[in-house]
Amino acid sequence: MEKTRDMETERLARAALSRLMEPQDAAGLALVQLAGATEALRIATGRVAAGPDLERDITALLADSGSAGSWAGLAAALRRWQPRIPDLAPERDLATMARLGGRVIIPGDELWPAQLADLGIQEPICLWWRGQEQPLPALEKSIALVGSRDSTSYGAAVTGDLAYSLAQRGYTIVSGGAYGIDAHAHRAALAGGSAAVPTIAVMAGGVDRFYPSGNEDLLRAVANQGAVLAEVPPGSAPTRYRFLQRNRLIAALSAVTVVVEARWRSGALNTAHHAETLGRAVGAVPGSVHSANSAGCHRLLRDGGAVCVTDAAEVAELASPSGTGLPEQRASEAAVQDGLTLEDLILLDALPLRSTTSVEKLSVVAGLGQDSVRAGLGRLGLLGLAVAERGGWKRGKG
Amino acid sequence: MEKTRDMETERLARAALSRLMEPQDAAGLALVQLAGATEALRIATGRVAAGPDLERDITALLADSGSAGSWAGLAAALRRWQPRIPDLAPERDLATMARLGGRVIIPGDELWPAQLADLGIQEPICLWWRGQEQPLPALEKSIALVGSRDSTSYGAAVTGDLAYSLAQRGYTIVSGGAYGIDAHAHRAALAGGSAAVPTIAVMAGGVDRFYPSGNEDLLRAVANQGAVLAEVPPGSAPTRYRFLQRNRLIAALSAVTVVVEARWRSGALNTAHHAETLGRAVGAVPGSVHSANSAGCHRLLRDGGAVCVTDAAEVAELASPSGTGLPEQRASEAAVQDGLTLEDLILLDALPLRSTTSVEKLSVVAGLGQDSVRAGLGRLGLLGLAVAERGGWKRGKG
Repeated sequence: MEKTRDMETERLARAALSRLMEPQDAAGLALVQLAGATEALRIATGRVAAGPDLERDITALLADSGSAGSWAGLAAALRRWQPRIPDLAPERDLATMARLGGRVIIPGDELWPAQLADLGIQEPICLWWRGQEQPLPALEKSIALVGSRDSTSYGAAVTGDLAYSLAQRGYTIVSGGAYGIDAHAHRAALAGGSAAVPTIAVMAGGVDRFYPSGNEDLLRAVANQGAVLAEVPPGSAPTRYRFLQRNRLIAALSAVTVVVEARWRSGALNTAHHAETLGRAVGAVPGSVHSANSAGCHRLLRDGGAVCVTDAAEVAELASPSGTGLPEQRASEAAVQDGLTLEDLILLDALPLRSTTSVEKLSVVAGLGQDSVRAGLGRLGLLGLAVAERGGWKRGKG
Repeated sequence: MEKTRDMETERLARAALSRLMEPQDAAGLALVQLAGATEALRIATGRVAAGPDLERDITALLADSGSAGSWAGLAAALRRWQPRIPDLAPERDLATMARLGGRVIIPGDELWPAQLADLGIQEPICLWWRGQEQPLPALEKSIALVGSRDSTSYGAAVTGDLAYSLAQRGYTIVSGGAYGIDAHAHRAALAGGSAAVPTIAVMAGGVDRFYPSGNEDLLRAVANQGAVLAEVPPGSAPTRYRFLQRNRLIAALSAVTVVVEARWRSGALNTAHHAETLGRAVGAVPGSVHSANSAGCHRLLRDGGAVCVTDAAEVAELASPSGTGLPEQRASEAAVQDGLTLEDLILLDALPLRSTTSVEKLSVVAGLGQDSVRAGLGRLGLLGLAVAERGGWKRGKG
């Protein structure tokens, strides 16, 4: 009971903090980590003054996590947060979420996706979640499909195939809810979905509004059957900065991030780089060298950070490198000739397809001694690659 | 004079040996390396008996070079060579080459391509060369373009672009003279060629015949303006075994081997693997995941051995990793925003495009203190990304 009340206090504090601070505000995240969310909120809103120890600890933590670059002291951070203090109303925000059929989850909740801890100090303060209350998929069952807004018919077809096929195999498709590749990914995942949460849309703005408006029906379906998530509170506009920060959540939620189509400069590449930084697998779908919409994918392949993926089986393999993914279907395509020695291959070449020939002639044509020819014909005969007919030899069908 | 006569004796011996032994006959190559070509011919034709020392040395050499697998003793090798002894007539073969406007070159000749020494014991015994007598290109100026015989219009277009563009920049295009990608590569190299030898066709059969016959005119043009090479003597049929061996020569001659189009199982992949084994660069051109003719290229990319290449500049870069290749044109595409801090990027997002706004409003929207907003506007103003207008601020064009 005590614990529940603590969690609810913490939840309100984190809901408020997520409105006060932009995503990945390094000073704010360090403050929360060191002082706890409730105390951090008191300090951030000026109700409590921070001692000099805290300022020193924040400096040390930011230096440790490599985020000291933008740190200009707590006073500067307080000035940055100050303009938003009048807007704080976390109880109202939680009520809004409840009305929308949603909730706020925070680290420590049973429903909190454990894989977000890999973000370290960049783990979001909370997540605003619109959709049914049910466990979100584990890392190894989540695959992100991302790409250009202005996708081509090729990108649409490949995205649809991958998302549908992966969803049918029980994977959850994570994407960003945008036009183009994102929309195709969500749509096909809803159609093929066999997991409890077939697809997740991670938004750059608040989940109260389905943005962009052209995707409203789609995102409503994603919320109904899957989940729509954001780290910014209801009412937040999807600014470019928030898009870039949002990308780290898509990457962190997913075992694999696949870029299906992307221009040379594209936000999808940013998501791929986040995935790489987290040590997650990155896949890139190849396409025509004449298509500007594949140039970003080829760039990823060329830079060596991404694996070339052409179908759902190859993507699933990346999600489970231990080999528990889908079977490699193409192994069976290996021809029977593959195991032959060079000498037998030479002999096979020398065997006529229609007429038959003698061991003596084969010896001359193949440049092999007659003993070798006889031994080789025996081996090829066992494989059905050579057949004896009316005292001579010809090629078999293998 | 003495030296010249020695070389001509050696040339005749090697010409004869190349008829006696299939390409890459490990026992034969070891024999030549240990005994010298002239003595090796005497032994191989039974005119001289080999001592037990030689047999032991061959065994050791083959074990060292990892080719002991097919070695069954000198007696077995002699039986293999025996059926072809009656066909030996090296003087006649050399006369044939002279009549065709060609020659035979051997290691030690000034015209011998130095890069073939990287093949070690697999270096060919000699090369039958049809075309003008002139130096063949150095390793770093040779690029192999290979691929499917049944190329698509996409493969044809990409091959044409690459070969023409590389030939114009002074590279020699090496390929195999086959239908499809090979033919497109030779043709475009002839059209774009600025090097003395714009293109080289390395044949699996004898150079006396232009094979396949549908490429006869093209190969005649390659011989006239470039070079047609083979390690097998005139009159040799292009067997499958010889195709596979020929591929190692294409790879060894070239600094880079680019596979433009290849099916999942394709001889072009064999050339790529030879190049990898030699430590040469391998490029693969991406294509549609729906095209079976790109599946082999994607396989190479996926296996990690090949670099994704989409234009001539990227191929040239592989040929000269030190950076002496073509300039990276895309560097200039970097936008001015790239150097901004996260805080300035947030501020940039908050700036309206048409109307103007105040520092106070920017402070609330961006979640930044007013001092930070003023400082940021100063930095963005210097870059032209923010402009002051009638007492307010709006977005600049950068």
